[in-house]
Amino acid sequence: MRRLTDDEITESVAGIDGWNLDEKFIVKRYLFREFLKGIAFVNEIAQLSEEQQHHPFISIDYKLVTLRITSWSAGGLTDLDFDLAKKYDEIFEKYTK
Amino acid sequence: MRRLTDDEITESVAGIDGWNLDEKFIVKRYLFREFLKGIAFVNEIAQLSEEQQHHPFISIDYKLVTLRITSWSAGGLTDLDFDLAKKYDEIFEKYTK
Repeated sequence: MRRLTDDEITESVAGIDGWNLDEKFIVKRYLFREFLKGIAFVNEIAQLSEEQQHHPFISIDYKLVTLRITSWSAGGLTDLDFDLAKKYDEIFEKYTK
Repeated sequence: MRRLTDDEITESVAGIDGWNLDEKFIVKRYLFREFLKGIAFVNEIAQLSEEQQHHPFISIDYKLVTLRITSWSAGGLTDLDFDLAKKYDEIFEKYTK
């Protein structure tokens, strides 16, 4: 997986909602109505991460879950990170209903 | 629940293994053999936290899970934090076998 150029990263970040660039990472905060809903979300993210062998940094601050992702093997952001960002958002969609 | 004095905190921290004082928090890092074992641990911690209505800050950096706890309502550390620290350690024990 090829590391993206700065221009490609700018374009890719613009194509996803609520994600911010933070050095070599993209970061998003997801807010849940209940603490255990956030934990259920983390479980889904964890299963997907393990299947893909691509693990985001996860933090849980009560009802606020933050995901931070990069491609260590490529030394920066790749298309895989942006594909996964979209998948995480799809998973989150279920929790907003 | 009464906020502990500095002396009480020093004594209580000495009574638990691997926990460090960080301003108003106590913090411990737990390392797991597998990513999904760390996630299982987080689930157990989350269930306990919800029962007690006392939620630690949790971060998951691949196989490394960090717990950070304080008593917001008391404005600092209380006996409850140290009781929970011991319970977290008991839960972790199962994952070391």
